[in-house]
Amino acid sequence: MTQRLYGILGDPVGQARSPSVFNARFAAEGRDAVMVPIEAAASDLEATLSGLRKIKNFAGLVVTVPHKAAAAAIARRRSTRVDLVRAANVLRPIEGGWEAELFDGDGFVNGLRSKGHQVKGKAVAIVGAGGAGIAIAEAILAAGGIISLSDRELHREEATIDLLNGAFPGRISLGAPGPIHAIAVNATPAGMDGDRSMVFDPATLDKRALVAEVVMKPAVTPLLQAAAELGLATHEGRHMLDGQADAIWSFLAMGEAPKLAETTG
Amino acid sequence: MTQRLYGILGDPVGQARSPSVFNARFAAEGRDAVMVPIEAAASDLEATLSGLRKIKNFAGLVVTVPHKAAAAAIARRRSTRVDLVRAANVLRPIEGGWEAELFDGDGFVNGLRSKGHQVKGKAVAIVGAGGAGIAIAEAILAAGGIISLSDRELHREEATIDLLNGAFPGRISLGAPGPIHAIAVNATPAGMDGDRSMVFDPATLDKRALVAEVVMKPAVTPLLQAAAELGLATHEGRHMLDGQADAIWSFLAMGEAPKLAETTG
Repeated sequence: MTQRLYGILGDPVGQARSPSVFNARFAAEGRDAVMVPIEAAASDLEATLSGLRKIKNFAGLVVTVPHKAAAAAIARRRSTRVDLVRAANVLRPIEGGWEAELFDGDGFVNGLRSKGHQVKGKAVAIVGAGGAGIAIAEAILAAGGIISLSDRELHREEATIDLLNGAFPGRISLGAPGPIHAIAVNATPAGMDGDRSMVFDPATLDKRALVAEVVMKPAVTPLLQAAAELGLATHEGRHMLDGQADAIWSFLAMGEAPKLAETTG
Repeated sequence: MTQRLYGILGDPVGQARSPSVFNARFAAEGRDAVMVPIEAAASDLEATLSGLRKIKNFAGLVVTVPHKAAAAAIARRRSTRVDLVRAANVLRPIEGGWEAELFDGDGFVNGLRSKGHQVKGKAVAIVGAGGAGIAIAEAILAAGGIISLSDRELHREEATIDLLNGAFPGRISLGAPGPIHAIAVNATPAGMDGDRSMVFDPATLDKRALVAEVVMKPAVTPLLQAAAELGLATHEGRHMLDGQADAIWSFLAMGEAPKLAETTG
């Protein structure tokens, strides 16, 4: 029986926490499986995925920046959520290609809940209208929150608001983090791996606001550090992964007997 | 910095010992690297290799059955030995493709030497004229041995004898294992993973003969078991890998700092 392979696909991908999370769980549950980092350029995504699809013991991918939109586009089968958000963070092999799903948003909302933070009826500011930002916005809207969205690139924020306004009318608008927001989220790569930039100033927020991250390495980004120094509550990026680990485990059949064992005995 | 990836490519590949050998060494030397099994069909070899070539942190492959001849053919750069034997068991990424090398033969001869068995001047019977058999025959000839070669497929044994007779005239001929041989080698997959077949009967050998394997799982194949019951000396397949581990480690730069670290800091 051949070890089952999983990957996390990104560029860069050295910062990704998924391998340590899932490899620890494989070990704990006695599964002969491993998750490895797969670093590939956006221009090489199609060839990389085609090659991985040929590997018989390759069982699926977590997808991260900058491949989330392309992963959704390339998939042969997509969930309703992937179709709406036009991004995916998980791909599993199916006949003739890949099936795409998106757990980032639910993972983020679950992560907030696990720390006692509800989003229903709350004003939430999200900075970043890339794959992570859109996914989080959609899930917070689905959970009853109200969103202010901003991005460095005007066309991205406008396109996202148009997109989500259709599904959740009147609950998403253009806006940067400020005193009205109960939660302010960095949904960009700012602060990752030694980067010192911050996409908003936590001093503009209400003192009771929560500052939340999607960046996982470092655990405490410059933004969270600055927020903590101001006495604001903070929420680390890892909770978004922890909040979707069970969903990924199930979607990628990580706890099931390898198909190879079924077909080759 | 992203973990450096290595693969062992075969079909099947669950029996391969390379991951445990090299992963133990990565751990012992504190390298952030991993070797994983990659199982792909012969018809998918080119697409699989194209995909792997796009992965920035992918650093090289050990190649096993049935891909050794195709790996040699697909490589952009080949050693003299790979050109002669027309098989490769290691591929490393170079500009625009792969560089191929073949360490199986030297690994086998080194493995015999490590157990006190010299091949110079000895009559050695090899059954199997596939990638492993040809590689072993070439290295034994280069080390001064005399070869009798046989294969189920007549055209394979004749082609191999023609090939190696050019480089080592008069020291390789057609022949099955018998009383004249000091060493008899199974260079086929017979006996692997529960298969009970034997490609020759050790009872036909001289009582002082050595019976040697290329199959690594199980360590003691039905052939070695039968030979031991007749009181013959035996030599396990794992010695061929142990005898080339240092050469593979060096060729695939497994002990060096990742290129990623050099270019991205």
